[in-house]
Amino acid sequence: MTQRIEFQTQPERYRHWKLRCEGEVAELIMDVDEAAPLFEGYQLKLNSYDLGVDIELADAVQRLRFEHPEVKVVVLKSGKERVFCAGANIRMLAGSTHAHKVNFCKFTNETRNGIEDASANSGQKYLCAIRGTAAGGGYELALATDRILLADDGNSSVALPELPLLAVLPGTGGLTRVTDKRKARRDLADAFCTVEEGVKGARAVKWRLVDQAVANSKFEAAVKEAAAKLAATSDRPGGDARGVALTPLERKIEADAVTYSCVKVEIDRATRRATVTIQGPGEPPPATAQTMWEQGAQFWPLRLARELDDVLLHLRLNEGETGVLIFKSQGDPTQVLAYDAFIAANKDHWLAREILHYWKRVLKRIDLTSRSLVALIEPGSCFAGTLAEIAFACDRSFMLIGAQKGDNRQPATLALSALNFGPYPMSNGLTRLATRFLGEPESVEKAKAETGKALDAETAEELGLVTTALDSVDWDDEVRIFLEERSSFSADGLTGMEANLRFAGPETMETKIFGRLTAWQNWIFQRPNAAGAEGALKRYGTGVKASFNPERV
Amino acid sequence: MTQRIEFQTQPERYRHWKLRCEGEVAELIMDVDEAAPLFEGYQLKLNSYDLGVDIELADAVQRLRFEHPEVKVVVLKSGKERVFCAGANIRMLAGSTHAHKVNFCKFTNETRNGIEDASANSGQKYLCAIRGTAAGGGYELALATDRILLADDGNSSVALPELPLLAVLPGTGGLTRVTDKRKARRDLADAFCTVEEGVKGARAVKWRLVDQAVANSKFEAAVKEAAAKLAATSDRPGGDARGVALTPLERKIEADAVTYSCVKVEIDRATRRATVTIQGPGEPPPATAQTMWEQGAQFWPLRLARELDDVLLHLRLNEGETGVLIFKSQGDPTQVLAYDAFIAANKDHWLAREILHYWKRVLKRIDLTSRSLVALIEPGSCFAGTLAEIAFACDRSFMLIGAQKGDNRQPATLALSALNFGPYPMSNGLTRLATRFLGEPESVEKAKAETGKALDAETAEELGLVTTALDSVDWDDEVRIFLEERSSFSADGLTGMEANLRFAGPETMETKIFGRLTAWQNWIFQRPNAAGAEGALKRYGTGVKASFNPERV
Repeated sequence: MTQRIEFQTQPERYRHWKLRCEGEVAELIMDVDEAAPLFEGYQLKLNSYDLGVDIELADAVQRLRFEHPEVKVVVLKSGKERVFCAGANIRMLAGSTHAHKVNFCKFTNETRNGIEDASANSGQKYLCAIRGTAAGGGYELALATDRILLADDGNSSVALPELPLLAVLPGTGGLTRVTDKRKARRDLADAFCTVEEGVKGARAVKWRLVDQAVANSKFEAAVKEAAAKLAATSDRPGGDARGVALTPLERKIEADAVTYSCVKVEIDRATRRATVTIQGPGEPPPATAQTMWEQGAQFWPLRLARELDDVLLHLRLNEGETGVLIFKSQGDPTQVLAYDAFIAANKDHWLAREILHYWKRVLKRIDLTSRSLVALIEPGSCFAGTLAEIAFACDRSFMLIGAQKGDNRQPATLALSALNFGPYPMSNGLTRLATRFLGEPESVEKAKAETGKALDAETAEELGLVTTALDSVDWDDEVRIFLEERSSFSADGLTGMEANLRFAGPETMETKIFGRLTAWQNWIFQRPNAAGAEGALKRYGTGVKASFNPERV
Repeated sequence: MTQRIEFQTQPERYRHWKLRCEGEVAELIMDVDEAAPLFEGYQLKLNSYDLGVDIELADAVQRLRFEHPEVKVVVLKSGKERVFCAGANIRMLAGSTHAHKVNFCKFTNETRNGIEDASANSGQKYLCAIRGTAAGGGYELALATDRILLADDGNSSVALPELPLLAVLPGTGGLTRVTDKRKARRDLADAFCTVEEGVKGARAVKWRLVDQAVANSKFEAAVKEAAAKLAATSDRPGGDARGVALTPLERKIEADAVTYSCVKVEIDRATRRATVTIQGPGEPPPATAQTMWEQGAQFWPLRLARELDDVLLHLRLNEGETGVLIFKSQGDPTQVLAYDAFIAANKDHWLAREILHYWKRVLKRIDLTSRSLVALIEPGSCFAGTLAEIAFACDRSFMLIGAQKGDNRQPATLALSALNFGPYPMSNGLTRLATRFLGEPESVEKAKAETGKALDAETAEELGLVTTALDSVDWDDEVRIFLEERSSFSADGLTGMEANLRFAGPETMETKIFGRLTAWQNWIFQRPNAAGAEGALKRYGTGVKASFNPERV
């Protein structure tokens, strides 16, 4: 698996999905090309999926939000005759490294959360119409939608057969959504998750696993009716609005660098660090929402969000040995604040709303990136408002007091905007500042009072907004020591520590999925019963039963 | 590690702790005998601990609640000169099996939660007086107390050096309590957890890691003053009340069975099942609280709770291959309800209060036991009130309709009492019935309306209180199939699945510790960077640096 995994795609290039938009209701049809797996060595039979299939799904979900403001309901269905979706491809999983398995699951979980975010925040509801078997990840996909209709035809079923078949968990949110979203009774959930063949018809409704079981003859009509009902609950702009095209990213890939229009990543392989430099806006925000819409994918906040998102995915999947991400920025902080103010002023415009929610998701993607994150806030930087949020997402931040010798740029400042105090909640439901100041909520208010001001390093440190303010005498040494120290620690230990320290405060279904469910799944992915040579993943389909160590831990 | 681990002890037998009770304030002094480890192969230097040390601590915490109603504040301190506690013994960890590490951590976490439970619910507050280094588990112990005083002497410090030294997490609640109880700022927490030597004095206060840093000369006085302040907040009965002695358990251990006064465990090694049979009360509850107090440890609910607790720990640590626990009961359900009514009526008596909270903790211990749990509710059983709660803690429950041929006992019934609706919350803060019926809260009310009634199998199934009601024709086959099926699954997959399905609904600090923190720690305990031959645990103290795989997952 040394080929570079590409996260950019577009509907014309889809191999596995068909997206049909007609008025308020779109159809998103899963029709996996079994001959087009992401890697060699397996076929995507029975509408099973791998990361390649999910990259297309994530792209479709994203385009539906930006390119189709008229779409109020998305009907998710299968393009195959007798199967809805067989879930994640088992041979792919069996042949994958631990790291690929973990990152594959994380991405699929983010995509499912994205579906729920579209429904909760963009008025784009999802309906799942299941004909045939929806097993494992197939049913988990259904679980991410607002309403599940199951054909009551003696054949169609929902199932989470991971435990009996593969000795792993339904880890794409499956267990958590069954108990916390569908709120199935725990003993019935237990029964459900141990029945390979799954559950059908009326029992699936009774166990709260689907919303409706409908006879085949009435299925199409029921789907239509349910779609119309969901559409009626949507605050999506509808018919008149026109979307903005998510045009291909400007991107140049070199051996140790990726350069976008306003992001650059430089990778130092010797030290295993990547420096992500963000370029502030080159011009002030447009005067009107109409101009923002005309700029479309070129509108700086949207362009940057897309580029940053691509960077994060690229680093996660293609640069596994990079242990530390260093965030830097360059530009005019007042311009960044001007963009924030523009978006805040236009937040009722559907496109501004989409951009805000997209930034929220990109920032969550940072929170969930299992690399050490550090912000270096230096002269010439523009960590203001939305960009300051990146510094708050970091495990540590260093800010230079004054300037380095010979540098005659203005000393670094940090600035807050209204967007730091609400629109970008973390997975735990709190803003980064509220999470940061859990023990001293008055500090959030104190920071809020400084909104819009250019805070120098000492003030930012005093307000608790950066970890350390350093003068030019100490800067190089302190930063170097931190980076070297970080490189000396165990990669796994850091992953576990950061996954705990980043999410103080309340838990939500989302944090439960990434904390509890994912952590247990990662553990199981390491255990011989699943992943060993005689384990269930390796032995699946060979006709030889897996050999299990019965010890309970 | 094939010797049986014994969880019963008493102060006269302590090797590692001294308990001094004088009036309202007790001193619990950690003074580990380095020559008395639980297993061979390591010495407990620097007040480090192993499971044996923690078993004594758990015993002391428990006795303080039952035997010392006069104690309002417990001062936790070290009996060594220059060290408070160096945490879990590293050689012990390095030499332990994965299963022992996991179960050791679980037990220590339960003990720390028990300390917090005493403070929150029994008015028995804990104060930690740190002189010397409190590192790793030593600081985690401090974190479990209400107030931490640190000597400001240039030497005393608090530290969580697990990541830098050992490539593992501060897994005994450490990370979670730093962020969620102490509410330390995440970047400072990150800095703290990466500094081997820890943090001292004023900085420890500023970072919210301790409550007070006090000069050596004033330390004793400050501890006294803080203890008096805490005592003033306590609703503990105080001076007049006399405790009840937790006398040694009646217990007979045989090769495949352990028999107590009202619990019997039979282990079938071929099928890897243990049957836990609970005996209901032999006589009605006493007439007065005074008589309950006179019965003391013989009072049936207390006796049963202690025996059941011992069973759970024995099975976890000494019977690792037992995959399924089958709970049965025998006795008169009306007697069980009478005891529940007696306790509910006397819940303001300190002893009844202790017993209720103890049952809560025992039931939590069941929830957290990583074995499949099933209740078989048969004629002659007494799953009523508190005992019904055990069935609700199970992954599945089967209830027989009518009787087996030739059995002329009354058919099985299930009954609810007031104790099913409040006093026994799970770690998630909800009752088991509220968790069970998360999706249909009206079912809790429906069940409540049936309080006190003897519900037959079909009614119990209809009310959703048992998984399956079966008649005598199907009983044997269905139960057998379930048990065989369970045995065929991967032990790890079951552990992960059950840890997810049992805890629907909200999360608390406690569930975060057992879900997020523990699951990540277990993952790390499997990773070569920590546990491999070249990993940090194995290489610690050898002078050879650990060799790490830098891949980030």
